[in-house]
Amino acid sequence: MATATVSKDILETHPAPAQLDRDLLARCIDECLVCLQACTACADADLAEADVAEMRRCIRLCLDCTDVCDATLRLLSRQTEYVAEAARAQVASCLEQCALCAGECERHADHHEHCRICAERCRRCKEACSAVLEAIG
Amino acid sequence: MATATVSKDILETHPAPAQLDRDLLARCIDECLVCLQACTACADADLAEADVAEMRRCIRLCLDCTDVCDATLRLLSRQTEYVAEAARAQVASCLEQCALCAGECERHADHHEHCRICAERCRRCKEACSAVLEAIG
Amino acid sequence: MATATVSKDILETHPAPAQLDRDLLARCIDECLVCLQACTACADADLAEADVAEMRRCIRLCLDCTDVCDATLRLLSRQTEYVAEAARAQVASCLEQCALCAGECERHADHHEHCRICAERCRRCKEACSAVLEAIG
Amino acid sequence: MATATVSKDILETHPAPAQLDRDLLARCIDECLVCLQACTACADADLAEADVAEMRRCIRLCLDCTDVCDATLRLLSRQTEYVAEAARAQVASCLEQCALCAGECERHADHHEHCRICAERCRRCKEACSAVLEAIG
Repeated sequence: MATATVSKDILETHPAPAQLDRDLLARCIDECLVCLQACTACADADLAEADVAEMRRCIRLCLDCTDVCDATLRLLSRQTEYVAEAARAQVASCLEQCALCAGECERHADHHEHCRICAERCRRCKEACSAVLEAIG
Repeated sequence: MATATVSKDILETHPAPAQLDRDLLARCIDECLVCLQACTACADADLAEADVAEMRRCIRLCLDCTDVCDATLRLLSRQTEYVAEAARAQVASCLEQCALCAGECERHADHHEHCRICAERCRRCKEACSAVLEAIG
Repeated sequence: MATATVSKDILETHPAPAQLDRDLLARCIDECLVCLQACTACADADLAEADVAEMRRCIRLCLDCTDVCDATLRLLSRQTEYVAEAARAQVASCLEQCALCAGECERHADHHEHCRICAERCRRCKEACSAVLEAIG
Repeated sequence: MATATVSKDILETHPAPAQLDRDLLARCIDECLVCLQACTACADADLAEADVAEMRRCIRLCLDCTDVCDATLRLLSRQTEYVAEAARAQVASCLEQCALCAGECERHADHHEHCRICAERCRRCKEACSAVLEAIG
């Protein structure tokens, strides 16, 4: 998916002035959407693999990453009464889960194509979180 | 967003044969992702509008639609041990929430651009749910 | 957990008159909360068991049940601008997931204590959903 | 609700040794469950109040707190392949959202009973998060 094609236009219609750069915000929300889906699908594909017993850590980290990306994109999609500390703490957690999940998925990337795709998406989401954190300051 | 660009490739990597057409599945998952984000952003923008008191029904239906699209896309992203009745019931609920939310957002579409966008996305998600329901049989 | 001890009092403080019996509503919301946690913990414990390869169906149904209970309790916790069809469709899906998950967990109840507990909680949630569906009519 | 009555017994059935004190964990999970429901109901009741325009910040913070408590309790309910940094970052975010939401709800506690209840539950959840953070170290 190209960057920032899902959430950008609707974020622009909010009646209040932007508190954070909407391109950065849209990119991060979009990457969270993509990552939550990839992690759900990767955990599920892991579960169906013959080597499921070796995939425990991957499944667990994918499940966490799904839930945290989900909360993060919902929080970032809200621009009414923005609070910087709230956004910062949640985006920092999202960056952490994405980094961990990317790292584990990469270990399986050469034998499980879903892990290769998932690692790539977690990596992109981590970078988008990092850019938002820098903008929050 | 173009249809079926987020979830299609990772769905294809699942080790088991598909139980449902993966193009239909991917389209429905993608529309749920787009719709969950649009509904979160629309509820939030409604809340910041001067006429918030007229937007109560819109906010409530957007919040429900967010939560139901979210559950639905997670369920559809799982292909291991597929159960038709489970998918059918959840997709039927998703179709219902999308139809209600689209109908309410359309009433505000000419004075709130976020409602116009959100209605369109709910409508597309409803159609994708309808196609999946037909495929489940 | 005793029935209807979490959500009852806050549901009673809603400014509008109840559209559904609040005891039934509170019971269903509480059972969904308990069930969402049990299913998350059961899927996770399954994953750590030596026989994880036999637990694939249990894990998958627990993950679905978590997500659907979650959406359902959020929807039922909202009393502003209640729409009967929306509640009916989502509670019907919740009943379906709980029944499936209870059935699968019961198959493992004598060798995995988490499955025994989870089955019991899914069963109670299913019954609470059934009572709400009857009340909606 | 009494403390640690929902999740404690199922957490104890996990096949691996505990990485974190299960009483602390259960208390935090239980408070997150209670808080996620209270925040959903409080945001919804705010929306139905005559002074909805004054409740914008309360609604927004309640919605965030719901989503973050939800992700947090799911993550803490998983004991397979525990990673301290992942738990720490998410619990830290949860503490932040609960503190903000409690602070705002307290401002409305004398005229809206749902805000009084919600503030109390956010406060308890914040304390449970704080105890878990200390245990993680």
